[in-house]
Amino acid sequence: MTESRPIKHITNLLRSDLPPAASRWVGFPEFNFVGGNNDADSVPLKTLAACAEAVLMREGRNLATYFLASGPMGYLPLREFIAAKLALRASYLCDPADILVTTGSMQALDLVNSAFLEPGDTVIIEEGTYGGAIGKLKSAGVNYIGAPLDEDGIRIDALAGILQDLADKGVQPKFIYTIPTVQNPTGSVMPLARRQELLSLARQYGTAIFEDDCYADLLWEGDRPPTIASLDQEGRVLYTGSFSKSIAPALRVGYLIADWPVMSRILPLKKDAGSGALEQMVLAEFGLDHFTRNVTDLTATLKGKCDAMVAALEEQFGASAEFLVPKGGIFIWITLPDGVDTTRLAQVAISEGVAINPGAEWSANAESGRHRLRLCFGNPDKQTIREGVRKLAEICRRETGIPPRSGNIDH
Amino acid sequence: MTESRPIKHITNLLRSDLPPAASRWVGFPEFNFVGGNNDADSVPLKTLAACAEAVLMREGRNLATYFLASGPMGYLPLREFIAAKLALRASYLCDPADILVTTGSMQALDLVNSAFLEPGDTVIIEEGTYGGAIGKLKSAGVNYIGAPLDEDGIRIDALAGILQDLADKGVQPKFIYTIPTVQNPTGSVMPLARRQELLSLARQYGTAIFEDDCYADLLWEGDRPPTIASLDQEGRVLYTGSFSKSIAPALRVGYLIADWPVMSRILPLKKDAGSGALEQMVLAEFGLDHFTRNVTDLTATLKGKCDAMVAALEEQFGASAEFLVPKGGIFIWITLPDGVDTTRLAQVAISEGVAINPGAEWSANAESGRHRLRLCFGNPDKQTIREGVRKLAEICRRETGIPPRSGNIDH
Repeated sequence: MTESRPIKHITNLLRSDLPPAASRWVGFPEFNFVGGNNDADSVPLKTLAACAEAVLMREGRNLATYFLASGPMGYLPLREFIAAKLALRASYLCDPADILVTTGSMQALDLVNSAFLEPGDTVIIEEGTYGGAIGKLKSAGVNYIGAPLDEDGIRIDALAGILQDLADKGVQPKFIYTIPTVQNPTGSVMPLARRQELLSLARQYGTAIFEDDCYADLLWEGDRPPTIASLDQEGRVLYTGSFSKSIAPALRVGYLIADWPVMSRILPLKKDAGSGALEQMVLAEFGLDHFTRNVTDLTATLKGKCDAMVAALEEQFGASAEFLVPKGGIFIWITLPDGVDTTRLAQVAISEGVAINPGAEWSANAESGRHRLRLCFGNPDKQTIREGVRKLAEICRRETGIPPRSGNIDH
Repeated sequence: MTESRPIKHITNLLRSDLPPAASRWVGFPEFNFVGGNNDADSVPLKTLAACAEAVLMREGRNLATYFLASGPMGYLPLREFIAAKLALRASYLCDPADILVTTGSMQALDLVNSAFLEPGDTVIIEEGTYGGAIGKLKSAGVNYIGAPLDEDGIRIDALAGILQDLADKGVQPKFIYTIPTVQNPTGSVMPLARRQELLSLARQYGTAIFEDDCYADLLWEGDRPPTIASLDQEGRVLYTGSFSKSIAPALRVGYLIADWPVMSRILPLKKDAGSGALEQMVLAEFGLDHFTRNVTDLTATLKGKCDAMVAALEEQFGASAEFLVPKGGIFIWITLPDGVDTTRLAQVAISEGVAINPGAEWSANAESGRHRLRLCFGNPDKQTIREGVRKLAEICRRETGIPPRSGNIDH
């Protein structure tokens, strides 16, 4: 073991401003309610295996060249599949030549941030949003302002106020980052009219929109509205999506779509010599029919897990836990009474095998998210969901007095 | 097509210091002597397909969780395979817990640079080296000093002089970046004694060594010496390798090895939620036996292509082209007479379908590389190699008068 070697002579050569050291990974907690993990039984193993064989035998020789003889935007058949999927499912017509295959949508976030943001720049995000996006903005030294949300996503009146306020101060926000369909963490869906208003505000104030549609394929309630990007006639919207949630998160295949004048400036920032080719090939081979079947089944399964978590929350937390029932996806955003500090709760809970996302990490204003939390239900089975929520309620009651009474089920 | 949309309103929001815009990809040139592309017939399609099926059916459910239930260092069976491969082939014993799976060795370079280097820092590289590494150092604002090479790699006497000179100036170089086995671009192999001297110099001057062993599995002449990392008892060496050259470049699977005190600081900089899982699973399943068989066959094929290129160079350029015959790998480093400017030659050649790496881009001192060039022979077949070298000689003669006489073969 390297730990037994004597002195480490080169740690003194590291940069002085690095983030804290990582710890050794110790496995998943028993009740894992964090992360974009998904239902393991729903991974389409047989189809993926058949696709792998078919595409390897037919086109595997292309693996010998960087970019699979498709160029740096990614494997062309995959880009064509993405275009077909977006046309069919999201009323979004786009040119495969403007689709960049990325290593997950995370790389899309990194690329857009790198292309647009300098320290001191300002962006607008949703008041509750993807914690990873907040973390990236923080480490880029960027100011972010949270736009208030309601059950339909960003409140347009409030956003207009924020934009006007910035304009009055002479600040040009670089973009509005939004997750309009199955919003993370609220699970809401922004209706069409509001999408149009959002685009119109962006136009009025000369800013861009960065639309993150990672969870949109997992919608189970209501029709999926057209993407904001599809309403855009000016190249004002940057769009990202992913197969992480609709097929499997470990695959690391996402995509970024932007008009070429912008994409041509972003592409040189992708310095990894391409995203994983085998995954691109297998997903392209998977194709639209399998995709549709897969997300239909997966979404039904996830709705069942969501129902189980909603029931468990009502049973265990009663009126102490407020939440919108999500319209799709893999998480619930819960508001506890003001006095609860979920950052502290998360620390205690993880030591007892229950992992939760404290609201402060998922909030533009950490203080206002302090009594909120996000619970993911995609990976644990229903029994684990029930037991985990019960255990979380017990820990929360012991630590904070909330919920004030014991749950209804036997302990 | 997006090109037909009216005005692009958001390019004004991009950072002002971005690299130049990318052009649309137009396909590979007819004679493609650049890039780490490999022999297409040697991609082990059937085995990869069989591995994909076996591992997906057995463990594919793990795709539902980020990091395949192996944690952020990467898929554990792959790390175990890498450890076994390095023990067997490079006399390098390392702990799978200290192996980080990366998205190609390029990501390893990015991670090490990010962890160690700030603008104004100094590193030592080889006078001829991987152009991508030079590009990364340049864009990081780092000073790099080229250590002279001979047919055995870095000249130790010259390196000692450089280190002493820096010490006299109070400059602490962060690391020495070396490709000791199948050096890029010279194809040389550093003997064991020199590896020990290099390590000893690094110790004396308190610097680190970054050992890039990407091409080492493609050695065909002589025994493979132990890695420098295997000689290191102090955690002074950072080590990277890749499956790009030994299996297929499009896969994007590499690895970085460092002692945990350093690795624990590097790991938080890898923010991509893991490298592609399917590639990791399939390569792990591929395993040592298939790997050994594959590189044995591949190396024989590459040696054949190398022989073809050497013969074509001798035939077409005669005494005008000086080069060491590489001991492995996929490229030849050629020195033309002083008057030839290969940067200009490359521009003319590409317009006529011949792609070459101008020496300036592969040299620590661009000026001293101006009359050199790198030719890759991994991907084109022998006939293409012969025709391409003949065409290159014709262009070179027309543009520079060198080689002074026509080649021996019929035109």
